Amino acid sequence: MASKKFNQVYIKDNFSVIGPLEGDGLLKTYDLVMDNYYYGEKTFEQAEIKMQKIVLANLLNKNKLSENKVDVLIGGDLINQTSISSYNASKFNIPYLGVYSACATYTEELILASSLIHGKLAKNIVAITSSHNLNAERQFRYPVEYGAVKKHTTTFTTTAALSTLITNEQTNIKIESATIGKAIDMGISDTNNMGAIMAPAAADTLNTHLMDLKRSINYYDLVITGDLGKIGKELFLEVLNKNYNINLKKYMDAGCEIYTNAQETYAGASGPVALPLVLFDKVLSSKKYKKILIIATGSLQSTQLANQKLGIPGIAHAVSLEVI
Amino acid sequence: MASKKFNQVYIKDNFSVIGPLEGDGLLKTYDLVMDNYYYGEKTFEQAEIKMQKIVLANLLNKNKLSENKVDVLIGGDLINQTSISSYNASKFNIPYLGVYSACATYTEELILASSLIHGKLAKNIVAITSSHNLNAERQFRYPVEYGAVKKHTTTFTTTAALSTLITNEQTNIKIESATIGKAIDMGISDTNNMGAIMAPAAADTLNTHLMDLKRSINYYDLVITGDLGKIGKELFLEVLNKNYNINLKKYMDAGCEIYTNAQETYAGASGPVALPLVLFDKVLSSKKYKKILIIATGSLQSTQLANQKLGIPGIAHAVSLEVI
Repeated sequence: MASKKFNQVYIKDNFSVIGPLEGDGLLKTYDLVMDNYYYGEKTFEQAEIKMQKIVLANLLNKNKLSENKVDVLIGGDLINQTSISSYNASKFNIPYLGVYSACATYTEELILASSLIHGKLAKNIVAITSSHNLNAERQFRYPVEYGAVKKHTTTFTTTAALSTLITNEQTNIKIESATIGKAIDMGISDTNNMGAIMAPAAADTLNTHLMDLKRSINYYDLVITGDLGKIGKELFLEVLNKNYNINLKKYMDAGCEIYTNAQETYAGASGPVALPLVLFDKVLSSKKYKKILIIATGSLQSTQLANQKLGIPGIAHAVSLEVI
Repeated sequence: MASKKFNQVYIKDNFSVIGPLEGDGLLKTYDLVMDNYYYGEKTFEQAEIKMQKIVLANLLNKNKLSENKVDVLIGGDLINQTSISSYNASKFNIPYLGVYSACATYTEELILASSLIHGKLAKNIVAITSSHNLNAERQFRYPVEYGAVKKHTTTFTTTAALSTLITNEQTNIKIESATIGKAIDMGISDTNNMGAIMAPAAADTLNTHLMDLKRSINYYDLVITGDLGKIGKELFLEVLNKNYNINLKKYMDAGCEIYTNAQETYAGASGPVALPLVLFDKVLSSKKYKKILIIATGSLQSTQLANQKLGIPGIAHAVSLEVI
């Protein structure tokens, strides 16, 4: 079965740093804002490594955790060979597991952390993820200096890093269950329309979650998808309705909750860090929701295979949170 | 603690396809051999996707497992965005988790599969990994057509794919325990000397494993490292001896067990598939060893960060197997 129920797994804390544009946007609850994209380093890649280092070191300090009290660090990012997370991991004396689900990385990390804690194989795990707009543009599209014209379906990679502490110690946020998604290829090969690539995967995962756990959509006070963006969000609601007869009302897409309309970010925010930023900011800090389903969404393209015009698989992993 | 003990986790079966050069080498027990590097596809990347597809489909057939009986597919490879594994996953109706530990990917997959089965969150999991020499050369070094001169410390990426079925059903191969490694950066920035990058990580993981589980090195009938190669292997033994006072005798490096000396593969074989190929071929089929520790080793470089001359982190994850 794709869905798993967990015992005795909780989110204890998180720490975030966001980029300059994100600091001027809709987010209100975060820890640090960068004043520029280099963040005191010589390259953007090294800036992103530093962003991860800062959110991990601060999370440990804030929670008075020494490195040897953290059983595992689970990390992932968008950069080739998930090298930002690996290079950051080498700065800490913590066992490290690298994962990759593109922008669905955060929920994959929560699922693996929860599985280890549920099985009593670990007590404290840190999940970390990040993205940096200029690194993602350089790697997946064009260096921004080229001034390439953008399609309206394009999303804008968020610059931020966020660490999350997951423990077996009871807190007010329980990780209750999760659904591991399938890679779904609908034959879409346009890398500038990731919302369309990911929407079918998100709908499949939500439907599987509800079927596996015998829940109706009304069970949840809120469903949040990761980074479908303005266009993908509409497609997701349409696919849910037409293919699964699910009428989703209490819903938010994190990609639509980070930038103001004036910030000209095309179809909205994307990147693996978009969902956790909005989760901790807008959702958990509001104290309005008790049962929350987060569905991070990823477009699993590589530039090499995109150039070969193959259909791009999308993926979405769901995690159910209960605020106690 | 970095080490975990598992209950009721077993390896049931595996299926492999190997490249033409590997077919002429030292391996004896494998399932299929490719007659050329395209394997009937238009590009080498698509050939590698097909290699994964063939080893997964055949493993399921051989074990009369329908796709919906597999709880999770855990996959990883060397290609950017682990796209070979993701694109292959989209051809199967199985929940998918992507991981990345470079050439240490196979043991990361076994550890995560074992954790899910140990915690009774899954019954059947398939771990899959692959590498294709010409894809790795094109991505990490130069397309082979350029005829770049090689250093003697360079290893040769193995062309092969291998799938492994891990279950809660008792078989004669038990996954007994494991140690998650740390990313260790010794300041080495030479991507043509991965043995030196990985040897300290392998030694640290082996020492941590023995300390955590209070075992002497004589507990194991055999220790196998992944792909340190001829030079990394000697460094590993030296670091073990000098830094940890461990005198390892019953030892083999998978990177040294795939090609003949006449095959001119520099310091030996590498790639995430090297270790499992040798494990199933030379080690398990020999029935000579009861307690086996496998330590897959990975060099976590990206070309982008290697060009920035940063030290490259190495990593190694260990898994203890018991043949019953």
